[in-house]
Amino acid sequence: MTATPVIIDCDPGHDDAIAILLAVASSEIDLLAVTTCFGNCALEDATRNALQVLELAGATDVPVAAGATGPLRGAATLGNYVHGGSGLDGPELPVPRRGAIAEDAVALMTRLIEGAAQPVTLAVIGPMTNVGALLSARPDLREGIAEIIFMGGSTERGNHTPAAEFNTFADPEALDIVLRSGVPVRMIGLNLTHQALATPEVVRRMQELPHEVGQTAAAWMGFFGSSYHRVWDFAAPPVHDPCTIAALIQPELIEWVDAFVAVELTGEWTRGATLVDLHNRYPEHAPNARVAMRLDAAGYWDLVLAALEELGRRS
Amino acid sequence: MTATPVIIDCDPGHDDAIAILLAVASSEIDLLAVTTCFGNCALEDATRNALQVLELAGATDVPVAAGATGPLRGAATLGNYVHGGSGLDGPELPVPRRGAIAEDAVALMTRLIEGAAQPVTLAVIGPMTNVGALLSARPDLREGIAEIIFMGGSTERGNHTPAAEFNTFADPEALDIVLRSGVPVRMIGLNLTHQALATPEVVRRMQELPHEVGQTAAAWMGFFGSSYHRVWDFAAPPVHDPCTIAALIQPELIEWVDAFVAVELTGEWTRGATLVDLHNRYPEHAPNARVAMRLDAAGYWDLVLAALEELGRRS
Amino acid sequence: MTATPVIIDCDPGHDDAIAILLAVASSEIDLLAVTTCFGNCALEDATRNALQVLELAGATDVPVAAGATGPLRGAATLGNYVHGGSGLDGPELPVPRRGAIAEDAVALMTRLIEGAAQPVTLAVIGPMTNVGALLSARPDLREGIAEIIFMGGSTERGNHTPAAEFNTFADPEALDIVLRSGVPVRMIGLNLTHQALATPEVVRRMQELPHEVGQTAAAWMGFFGSSYHRVWDFAAPPVHDPCTIAALIQPELIEWVDAFVAVELTGEWTRGATLVDLHNRYPEHAPNARVAMRLDAAGYWDLVLAALEELGRRS
Amino acid sequence: MTATPVIIDCDPGHDDAIAILLAVASSEIDLLAVTTCFGNCALEDATRNALQVLELAGATDVPVAAGATGPLRGAATLGNYVHGGSGLDGPELPVPRRGAIAEDAVALMTRLIEGAAQPVTLAVIGPMTNVGALLSARPDLREGIAEIIFMGGSTERGNHTPAAEFNTFADPEALDIVLRSGVPVRMIGLNLTHQALATPEVVRRMQELPHEVGQTAAAWMGFFGSSYHRVWDFAAPPVHDPCTIAALIQPELIEWVDAFVAVELTGEWTRGATLVDLHNRYPEHAPNARVAMRLDAAGYWDLVLAALEELGRRS
Repeated sequence: MTATPVIIDCDPGHDDAIAILLAVASSEIDLLAVTTCFGNCALEDATRNALQVLELAGATDVPVAAGATGPLRGAATLGNYVHGGSGLDGPELPVPRRGAIAEDAVALMTRLIEGAAQPVTLAVIGPMTNVGALLSARPDLREGIAEIIFMGGSTERGNHTPAAEFNTFADPEALDIVLRSGVPVRMIGLNLTHQALATPEVVRRMQELPHEVGQTAAAWMGFFGSSYHRVWDFAAPPVHDPCTIAALIQPELIEWVDAFVAVELTGEWTRGATLVDLHNRYPEHAPNARVAMRLDAAGYWDLVLAALEELGRRS
Repeated sequence: MTATPVIIDCDPGHDDAIAILLAVASSEIDLLAVTTCFGNCALEDATRNALQVLELAGATDVPVAAGATGPLRGAATLGNYVHGGSGLDGPELPVPRRGAIAEDAVALMTRLIEGAAQPVTLAVIGPMTNVGALLSARPDLREGIAEIIFMGGSTERGNHTPAAEFNTFADPEALDIVLRSGVPVRMIGLNLTHQALATPEVVRRMQELPHEVGQTAAAWMGFFGSSYHRVWDFAAPPVHDPCTIAALIQPELIEWVDAFVAVELTGEWTRGATLVDLHNRYPEHAPNARVAMRLDAAGYWDLVLAALEELGRRS
Repeated sequence: MTATPVIIDCDPGHDDAIAILLAVASSEIDLLAVTTCFGNCALEDATRNALQVLELAGATDVPVAAGATGPLRGAATLGNYVHGGSGLDGPELPVPRRGAIAEDAVALMTRLIEGAAQPVTLAVIGPMTNVGALLSARPDLREGIAEIIFMGGSTERGNHTPAAEFNTFADPEALDIVLRSGVPVRMIGLNLTHQALATPEVVRRMQELPHEVGQTAAAWMGFFGSSYHRVWDFAAPPVHDPCTIAALIQPELIEWVDAFVAVELTGEWTRGATLVDLHNRYPEHAPNARVAMRLDAAGYWDLVLAALEELGRRS
Repeated sequence: MTATPVIIDCDPGHDDAIAILLAVASSEIDLLAVTTCFGNCALEDATRNALQVLELAGATDVPVAAGATGPLRGAATLGNYVHGGSGLDGPELPVPRRGAIAEDAVALMTRLIEGAAQPVTLAVIGPMTNVGALLSARPDLREGIAEIIFMGGSTERGNHTPAAEFNTFADPEALDIVLRSGVPVRMIGLNLTHQALATPEVVRRMQELPHEVGQTAAAWMGFFGSSYHRVWDFAAPPVHDPCTIAALIQPELIEWVDAFVAVELTGEWTRGATLVDLHNRYPEHAPNARVAMRLDAAGYWDLVLAALEELGRRS
């Protein structure tokens, strides 16, 4: 089996960082580029964090391009209240020996999709802005996209607001474009990622890895966990973003249902909430996404831990 | 302890019927009137059903007044897809020997509140239309209302739509008026009532009651359960409405939290969804409702079964 | 011809004051009551102003009842930036020798409509709150209402916002209820009332009236005109509200078209704007209102001046 | 003075056609490209019509690139009810001897802006979709855009709906992006273009031009005029789109005011309406556009007629 060509579009972010590490470590993934977006932190922080994480992973050949500083509409919402002032607070990280490329994120995506031998997978783990803009400007590129798999939304409640998850709140218009685009979409929402808890046992396994990658991951979980405890009273933090990469590597870790998914744009209290029609309440709307419902959490953490171990071995 | 003066505003409906029976049977409740609203069925069906249920309960002295045929805004949404063509499909019911009074529901509520020796409790178990209209027209009556306890909304997903519970979907503007009124509000949402399942064991206990009231209740559960199985794939039906009456009789059956609650009026996909701010995501909004979170289901069913038994004894 | 029984629901306001004077002076109008609403000023100011204007007019037998302090939904918008701190700034007015009645505005309307020998006309020249609440609570009273004629909205731009006229902005939900009620509606919008300018010639005619009523009216026009000049750069103030009363007395002063009218509830920039479908762009919506299009301004001012003269004669 | 480099983004359309002719004829304009959009007709019709108009004008060296088939959000609204089945019904047009280029409209705009020696002017006379997508995907290109001048919206009523002009109704989200972009914007709304009426006198002057260009233009006015008479009861059709080109050539033909402009995205009845704050009702919003208020109609038609004459001379 040949590796899946993937662009990760992200806003690191602690769980983004783990997702990048997982992708770099996995032979099933051909990581073409990392593009960045505002979200968990401001764009310039996200871009620097992406470069640092790739440095830590020894993946300094993966190009990084900066994208949107704010959503398609309105002002930027940032997640520093969860991820700290830098967007990736906690352990000291290596100073990257390179910068982002001069090309804008959408220009890079365009070039990579146009030049790829096979359709490219977009794994979007921050706000959907870059990909929404790409599809608006160049609908003709749809054929070149194998699928868009994203972390965002929920079949249930939100987190940033009672109704809306952070990423879908941060740019609902962009997600709306994606959901209507006809490109195959997989959605990994809070209902799934709240099963991906970095329990003390998981953190201990990270700590026991005898190298910087494991130590750093464990320290990230410490910071992230304290945020989740403070804001939402969680006993252990849900590690959202790597679920998308895990789904690309081992889709069987997750149970999926095909459903109609929409995102609320106009609500006073519900803007950015995802609507997942699990009981066919909108029979006039055919399924437009595959929605993650249940996670094999043990298998997930085995996969993540193996990836961290592999990166430690390489370093 | 003196009995609490209560007006039940309802749209019977199988679970409304049980709620009425529970109120009639309970010495803690002084049932001043039953007012009706469109909702689970059209107004005229709801009114006839209320009369029939009171006939079954032997409570033919409780006045019934008909109210709104549709919401404050827009067209009526009806729940016959759950409750059947009559709104109370299933067992044959006694033909009522009286009709509704000539007075309109809001006029009756106004008269009862103005004339009461102590503030009156409104238990609203259908759309909030009648009470929203009452508070709009006569804000000066607020002092005469002890509290408004309603079945509707959820801290989680909806049922009529993925986002919205049926009652709050059916008249969000009316609920909005109530939530902003300053009158004490208790909310019993799907998150609570989905714990009030009429399991086979519960239905069996009803069937074993040696009188018409028990038989009828059990038969209602049969019809209601088959609807819930068909539409939402539930193994047993959640018996929503009596939770409000149970909360008046034995508040300790339920765990409550004070929270800010709003209802979405403007969403394309989320109209009628309730927003319950459990994690203080809107610190600028103080709690305006007491929200039911956890039910002692065993205690709840003991209470309901005892009420059915009492009515059987009386008949 | 017998006089038309009319309740004026108002928020005086300089132009409301002229409207009340016109009604009191006219034998074609049987003024049953004046009810008040927040709007041009707070409710208590509007109520006091109504009492003062009736005192000036020598109509101390017309009952005044206070209504809503704010709209059906949300916070009150007030027009003191146009009408001054009292809502009726300018000339000193007689101290009223009576107060409002104890009955609430909606309760009084209800009683008058129920007791009237013929259907009653409601002339609403402030926000629609009281009448919206009345129709919500007591839809059965529709038969007792001959028509609702209101000043509000426009076929064109607004004034309080670029899109919305003040009265329709102040309570769009209430207007929406009226427009959907099935009661005959006549709408007098800014497109009409901007033809009713109190030009220097008009003001001079008022000043030349040899009594307090004329002097007071002229002084009101002075204050009102300076507001309109300051806020909207008008050379002379449009005297909106009396157009409704003029339409009851001499309908031929106005050219009307039947059209579908709606009011925007959900717009970010357009909330409260009226939509008048003059070119049948919504063929699926039948006309639900008679909309004023063109005013015989000379005839209008002759009517108003004659009324002021008549009141002076009586005093 | 050197010619202004301009890309016309359009949906021809009868008035678009005149706008293209005016640009081609004018030495003040360096027409870099014509890009097309859905709008007055489907994209493929608009593209063919653009090619035909350029053929008629003898401007077969101006590249034509096709853009969006629908708006950024939702389904396409088409204006064939005004412009006929082809989008340019009426006289027979020359069969174009070439097609559109393979490049997508946004890709061509990107390339031209990146390659231009000086900032490029975008004259948008259809829905704003292509330019909205361009700015979303490549906000870094803003520096390369001298201004965006567009025909759309109004300071007053709309036409496609009572509230909204066709172009702004057809893609309000795209216009919103432009209005928030910081790029200089000039708006030419219906309030201006309803002063640009092709009166019988104007049409006669076209007819008297002794060549195909004049005859065709006159025939277009005939078709367009009959549509405007049928739908909106106009005696002569307003020729909207060439006002943008006229404003580039002779800005003094128009009186302008700087104002805050927004576009309604969420209204039930007002979606796509423009909000032009002429009276500083939103002091917190600084002007973001220069808005056309008054047209020198005689000068305008002289300019257009001279352009048609010039093209006839060339042919």
